[in-house]
Amino acid sequence: MIKTRLLLCCLLLSTTAFSQQRYEPNWSSIDSRPVPAWFEDAKFGIFIHWGVFSVPAWAPTDASVYEKYAEWYWWRLLDPKAQTYQNFNDYHNRTYGKDFKYQDFVKGFTCEMFEPKAWAEVLKGSGAKYVVLTSKHHEGFTLWPSAQAWNWNAVDVGPHRDLAGDLSKAVKEAGLRMGYYYSLYEWFNPLYKSDVKKYVDEHMMPQMKDLVTRYEPDIFWTDGEWEHPSETWKSTEFLAWLYNESPVKNEVVVNDRWGKETRSVHGGIYTTEYDLVHDQGSAGKKIEHPWEECRGIGGSFGYNRNEDLSHYSSSKELIRILVDKVARGGNLLLNIGPTADGRIPVIMQQRLHDMGQWLGVNGEAIYGTRAWSKSPAITKETKVFFTQKGKDLYVICTSFPDKAIVVNDVKKPSKVALLGFRGSVSTSGSGKGLTINPPQVTPANNPCDHAWVFKLENAL
Amino acid sequence: MIKTRLLLCCLLLSTTAFSQQRYEPNWSSIDSRPVPAWFEDAKFGIFIHWGVFSVPAWAPTDASVYEKYAEWYWWRLLDPKAQTYQNFNDYHNRTYGKDFKYQDFVKGFTCEMFEPKAWAEVLKGSGAKYVVLTSKHHEGFTLWPSAQAWNWNAVDVGPHRDLAGDLSKAVKEAGLRMGYYYSLYEWFNPLYKSDVKKYVDEHMMPQMKDLVTRYEPDIFWTDGEWEHPSETWKSTEFLAWLYNESPVKNEVVVNDRWGKETRSVHGGIYTTEYDLVHDQGSAGKKIEHPWEECRGIGGSFGYNRNEDLSHYSSSKELIRILVDKVARGGNLLLNIGPTADGRIPVIMQQRLHDMGQWLGVNGEAIYGTRAWSKSPAITKETKVFFTQKGKDLYVICTSFPDKAIVVNDVKKPSKVALLGFRGSVSTSGSGKGLTINPPQVTPANNPCDHAWVFKLENAL
Amino acid sequence: MIKTRLLLCCLLLSTTAFSQQRYEPNWSSIDSRPVPAWFEDAKFGIFIHWGVFSVPAWAPTDASVYEKYAEWYWWRLLDPKAQTYQNFNDYHNRTYGKDFKYQDFVKGFTCEMFEPKAWAEVLKGSGAKYVVLTSKHHEGFTLWPSAQAWNWNAVDVGPHRDLAGDLSKAVKEAGLRMGYYYSLYEWFNPLYKSDVKKYVDEHMMPQMKDLVTRYEPDIFWTDGEWEHPSETWKSTEFLAWLYNESPVKNEVVVNDRWGKETRSVHGGIYTTEYDLVHDQGSAGKKIEHPWEECRGIGGSFGYNRNEDLSHYSSSKELIRILVDKVARGGNLLLNIGPTADGRIPVIMQQRLHDMGQWLGVNGEAIYGTRAWSKSPAITKETKVFFTQKGKDLYVICTSFPDKAIVVNDVKKPSKVALLGFRGSVSTSGSGKGLTINPPQVTPANNPCDHAWVFKLENAL
Amino acid sequence: MIKTRLLLCCLLLSTTAFSQQRYEPNWSSIDSRPVPAWFEDAKFGIFIHWGVFSVPAWAPTDASVYEKYAEWYWWRLLDPKAQTYQNFNDYHNRTYGKDFKYQDFVKGFTCEMFEPKAWAEVLKGSGAKYVVLTSKHHEGFTLWPSAQAWNWNAVDVGPHRDLAGDLSKAVKEAGLRMGYYYSLYEWFNPLYKSDVKKYVDEHMMPQMKDLVTRYEPDIFWTDGEWEHPSETWKSTEFLAWLYNESPVKNEVVVNDRWGKETRSVHGGIYTTEYDLVHDQGSAGKKIEHPWEECRGIGGSFGYNRNEDLSHYSSSKELIRILVDKVARGGNLLLNIGPTADGRIPVIMQQRLHDMGQWLGVNGEAIYGTRAWSKSPAITKETKVFFTQKGKDLYVICTSFPDKAIVVNDVKKPSKVALLGFRGSVSTSGSGKGLTINPPQVTPANNPCDHAWVFKLENAL
Repeated sequence: MIKTRLLLCCLLLSTTAFSQQRYEPNWSSIDSRPVPAWFEDAKFGIFIHWGVFSVPAWAPTDASVYEKYAEWYWWRLLDPKAQTYQNFNDYHNRTYGKDFKYQDFVKGFTCEMFEPKAWAEVLKGSGAKYVVLTSKHHEGFTLWPSAQAWNWNAVDVGPHRDLAGDLSKAVKEAGLRMGYYYSLYEWFNPLYKSDVKKYVDEHMMPQMKDLVTRYEPDIFWTDGEWEHPSETWKSTEFLAWLYNESPVKNEVVVNDRWGKETRSVHGGIYTTEYDLVHDQGSAGKKIEHPWEECRGIGGSFGYNRNEDLSHYSSSKELIRILVDKVARGGNLLLNIGPTADGRIPVIMQQRLHDMGQWLGVNGEAIYGTRAWSKSPAITKETKVFFTQKGKDLYVICTSFPDKAIVVNDVKKPSKVALLGFRGSVSTSGSGKGLTINPPQVTPANNPCDHAWVFKLENAL
Repeated sequence: MIKTRLLLCCLLLSTTAFSQQRYEPNWSSIDSRPVPAWFEDAKFGIFIHWGVFSVPAWAPTDASVYEKYAEWYWWRLLDPKAQTYQNFNDYHNRTYGKDFKYQDFVKGFTCEMFEPKAWAEVLKGSGAKYVVLTSKHHEGFTLWPSAQAWNWNAVDVGPHRDLAGDLSKAVKEAGLRMGYYYSLYEWFNPLYKSDVKKYVDEHMMPQMKDLVTRYEPDIFWTDGEWEHPSETWKSTEFLAWLYNESPVKNEVVVNDRWGKETRSVHGGIYTTEYDLVHDQGSAGKKIEHPWEECRGIGGSFGYNRNEDLSHYSSSKELIRILVDKVARGGNLLLNIGPTADGRIPVIMQQRLHDMGQWLGVNGEAIYGTRAWSKSPAITKETKVFFTQKGKDLYVICTSFPDKAIVVNDVKKPSKVALLGFRGSVSTSGSGKGLTINPPQVTPANNPCDHAWVFKLENAL
Repeated sequence: MIKTRLLLCCLLLSTTAFSQQRYEPNWSSIDSRPVPAWFEDAKFGIFIHWGVFSVPAWAPTDASVYEKYAEWYWWRLLDPKAQTYQNFNDYHNRTYGKDFKYQDFVKGFTCEMFEPKAWAEVLKGSGAKYVVLTSKHHEGFTLWPSAQAWNWNAVDVGPHRDLAGDLSKAVKEAGLRMGYYYSLYEWFNPLYKSDVKKYVDEHMMPQMKDLVTRYEPDIFWTDGEWEHPSETWKSTEFLAWLYNESPVKNEVVVNDRWGKETRSVHGGIYTTEYDLVHDQGSAGKKIEHPWEECRGIGGSFGYNRNEDLSHYSSSKELIRILVDKVARGGNLLLNIGPTADGRIPVIMQQRLHDMGQWLGVNGEAIYGTRAWSKSPAITKETKVFFTQKGKDLYVICTSFPDKAIVVNDVKKPSKVALLGFRGSVSTSGSGKGLTINPPQVTPANNPCDHAWVFKLENAL
Repeated sequence: MIKTRLLLCCLLLSTTAFSQQRYEPNWSSIDSRPVPAWFEDAKFGIFIHWGVFSVPAWAPTDASVYEKYAEWYWWRLLDPKAQTYQNFNDYHNRTYGKDFKYQDFVKGFTCEMFEPKAWAEVLKGSGAKYVVLTSKHHEGFTLWPSAQAWNWNAVDVGPHRDLAGDLSKAVKEAGLRMGYYYSLYEWFNPLYKSDVKKYVDEHMMPQMKDLVTRYEPDIFWTDGEWEHPSETWKSTEFLAWLYNESPVKNEVVVNDRWGKETRSVHGGIYTTEYDLVHDQGSAGKKIEHPWEECRGIGGSFGYNRNEDLSHYSSSKELIRILVDKVARGGNLLLNIGPTADGRIPVIMQQRLHDMGQWLGVNGEAIYGTRAWSKSPAITKETKVFFTQKGKDLYVICTSFPDKAIVVNDVKKPSKVALLGFRGSVSTSGSGKGLTINPPQVTPANNPCDHAWVFKLENAL
């Protein structure tokens, strides 16, 4: 009988729509679902880390990567190795007293300045096409009124407001896609620590379904999966429900963090934070699957008051990062960390604004493009990147070229232009190599800062 | 086969010990267990209401009985009929602001002055033989580190201390019995409100068993049972476990609050707060079953800062209440409400001390006694009460008699004495009526205040 | 010319009223003013210590006398010898953190429960005839909106309320006299510490005059005078103003704390706290001048949360203290320490109530009386005290006499009675010694507790 | 005799040093002191508004200029016209409650992140040569331990730290000049309100002298002078002391805010905020006296959490503002508003950094220059500005010129260069007009952003 149904599914699929397929709770079936097309075209999303950790909002800035994450404050406080975090402990004890517990921070999570519409405008102004908010981080505190997190959620305590719901509404109204980050594990939840099966059945699964049915997110971005295999988390069951039954079954995008064996192997998009963390970036990698890299503007995801200007990437650096990811075929999920009183720090607004300005001129070289299959290998020194869309090739220069650029493996383009620049661009050669001569751009007619794009129409 | 086992049980019981009986999860079996003898002999216990409600510690004092309960603060705050609590709402809004939520009080539950040993001494000094602490009231906040109440218990938030465990240890070391009050329902727990079955299985039952196995209480005093029948609460299952398996199976005492149909019908001792509330007391009642009446020193159980001296019962009144309950065959569970910083208000210490002083002289007329079967009916005007122990009769006068007292239905006693008084007591008559002539007691040789006891040896 | 004026004054005085005298700013003139008669007749007042110290409300209870004063919290915190206060420092650091400064306590001085009318009723119910409130203790914080203590007074910070004014109004409306305690020095006021002359002129003097003209107190009770002679404090200038110009010149009573040389030498009434402190009481002293002794119900003046029942004097002890002072010719100023939220602790209400009950029966033996010149010497063991009023003698027994009492040096009284007792009192003898036979009082007709008074009419 | 002394002074002056002159307490004498030369050469300073107002840190952003000043929070709260500030009142009542008083904010002034050395680096990195910190704003709260502001200063309450002293030390060590803003009046100081003379003598004057002798500031920047003439403030007395006696008599710079009649008339440098406020800038003005204009990066001086990116001037705008002031002969005092926890918001760090970058290339066109006497009138549309130093003329273009620039009234320069650019600059013509041809600058060799400077050597 199963066979018959499968056959029926196939028939239906071939004749009707994508949404008719029925997924089974196993990886083979789950992995057969294509990542919805909107995601790969979107290229640029904004990650938001917000929670109780936004209250102390403090991490060392001179430490190794993980120690720079302000959202790991609670962990650091209780870590048996905490003595090694000299700076951190000094700060905590001096500022709050050694008997001050993490949960006591919740009263400072006030969010009185939170205006979802204003946030949505800032987010949209960045040129990003989607948003991913931490509905619950490893601390277990939920930004929505979760019945499973009674008195440990943003409506019962702290701001007394449905932060997740209010932001979702505003972001969608602004025309962006809205998604949620959700941590499978919770560091200190006694149910998780004593009986993971019970935790999955009675706590995690109801929360995930509640989140999906309540707010209908476009992205369900899991994390905190590493302590157990996906079988323990019942990930395929959840995904089968998500793909077959949920109100977002057609459009929802998930990632690959569903169990300790699943990253870059199973699920939806692949995520590459790990590589970044090890300072290799996704440099040498060939990834044939839709993927996304997340990173902060500074060294932390959660807001870190301890970061000064030197810890923030410049707009120029951020644009190079975006171009790098897109030229490799990936998406960038750039993180911001709002404050405990509900504001997006103005320096982050500035960075998002600058990216939006650049994308306003050069967006067509980013959105909807794919990596160019004949691109030279990308390294840390790369200054010329390529993206393609249909027959057009985009040549993205992260420094303004001080001499002619040679592009190999292209046909003679029907037209060559510098995006945003009115003047013409002269070229020479073809076949083996097309030579582009940078036009006479001065500060007076410079179309943009940070990176410049030559569009080669019909060159592929 | 069941029959056989029952038979075997009976055999075992008759030849060996009480503890060998096996109870089944039905009322008939559960009710067959006798109340452990220590309880009826103890006569006097101290109830302690302590929780987040001890932070606002406020209730109207001019309202109806239930509205005087400071521990119902949260309910009053969210009650749709809250507008009718004019005073209450005025107080809350003026003092904390209308956006201040009940959960925000938890940061004020500091308990920095809590010294369990000092408490135990005060409790013991009252002459009480047992203590019952609210391990969890209807607010759902637990005074012990309950895994089911993560971040809503006294170790995770507020005092960051195991109040229930620390007090239990000290009380037992002082030689008193220790018990816990536990509310079956929780006003605002979303799990309870959405799925009571799940709540019972995943939240309540694990909590109750945790409490019993962790601290081995002598009393398990339930409440908040009235919204569901005992079947919903799975009360007989729990009691069968408690009586058969738990570490306290032999000694533990429970009450009759196990479902909306069980008060004064099923369970252990009967509780009579309800009657008290309706201002009838247990006056006209004939209760043939071990029972206990609880009440506050003032009009509230949880500490109410709004109560002044006029709201506190005097020591004289409290001693009359104790005598009244004991003369009727019951126990008194007298409540105290500690403060949010961990103290027993000194006025309560005074009342407990005065009772202890009185019991130091007259305790033999209370502990281990039973109601005298031939006692005249007790009314609000009664000034002469009777208790018996073996062949001795105690005549307890709550006013010092200004003339001779006649006691009917007694044999001529072998000896008559005024407890604590060195002088002799003359009597006359017998058979129909024994006349006791109050001795010449002056303020200079008065053995005690508040109530005086004549002991009639071998009068029964 | 001065002589002439003095002469004129004398003339005026002899022919007109007391209030016409003009006092000069020297002790000789100031001391010539008689203490207004109402004070000596009043006998019993209530002292109130309330301020920022009511927030921590903590002092060791096992320490020497001064260390038990909770109102000295700030001093103890900054005292170079603070290390010796082991308990105190442990408490402060553990509870608030070592960086928590005294001034930070002010936010906890909320007084939201403060109801002046209810206080006034409690105060009046004690039988006291006057009230003395700390308008400013050594901390310098004023309970009224003093311009000299900007942002360090109860209207600008903390309760945001004129505590001194509101209480004064209610106390006067209740028919009691109202007075203020005022500390001349301020421990940490930089103006005082750097330039005492400037402090006196620009800070202290304006404050004292403001207090007097604003609220017209019946008593101006100074303290904190010991670091400087009265000349530095310009005490006689102030007193001359107070006696000549102020709105309360006729009725106001002051004490003897006006400079390091003035106690029991200059000013108004003499105060004897010092003796008490040295555990000698005013025992052996012959004081021919109106005087008053102040003391707490417990060991502290400011509220001390660390005190339990054992630290509070019983009602019986307090009545003995009152009788002792009055029999020696003095007044008792009994202290209460309200809480930071504005309540008189109920145990203090109880004590005041008990004193009021006793005075309700026996007040005539206290109010308006004087020490009996022929009284035997009073010692710590004394159980029979004497007061006189006109030709009547009061014999006050702090234990009910278990045998006849002999009173020497009296005439045969026209009548002898036990106050509050309806029965007659038999006597025998006269001249050398009158023998009073205690009547047959039982607990049933006992007129009062704690102390019993025989009134001997026309015995002097 | 005065004549003689004056004569002596003149003699001394002519033969020895500037510092030998003795100033009299009248404007004629005071005004005769030249502004120390360092000030006019410095051109660029950083203003810092920090105080209790940094805690609420809130002002409307859509209001008129004065209402945008977050440092006026307290005034707005108590202003009888407060009802008109609808937004403001809504915000305050909703967030803190209507009974929350301004003084209650002080507990939130924690400054735990304040690192003076890091601040000094940020300040120095901006290219500014001096710093002016609000030692005391109109709220009267002092950032140093002022004896006159007991319990209303940063050492006694709030951060418990000498903010003024700690910053001064670090700023001086970094090689910058350090100055203090000081408000003469205090909105709500009762001493000021009731007796201005006393306030001046006992409060203000001691504070000003304390500040000067304690920290030896290079600038003493007064404000809040408008309610009284300079005579009331005794300004000339203070200035005579400052110029004759104080430890900073030689180098200190003051401004013109010494009484309601003194702006742009008396004192040291002239200040022009007033004009700015009226949206005219110092546009049409001819100021022959050293002057300075202050303004915020956003619309407020004190930190305003309510300002988003749109309210902050861009780096380009700020550089134009600096150039505009310098080309007119003035200084720019650019304000930053640190946070209550002690940080310079990163967006402000960014702006200061950008200015420092620009000055790193173009500083020689700013520091030590003077307005060019033959400059065309400067208007809001001006894009070419001029400064001169010795015989050199600097031509500052706030847009990169898209065509040749003609400069009139200059000699043929010995050399013309674009600062920071290696290539040569061709010119033509002379006498009537020198034509400068902008060189071929591309984004690849562009020396700076925001403004470009041509240096004309020996053109004057």
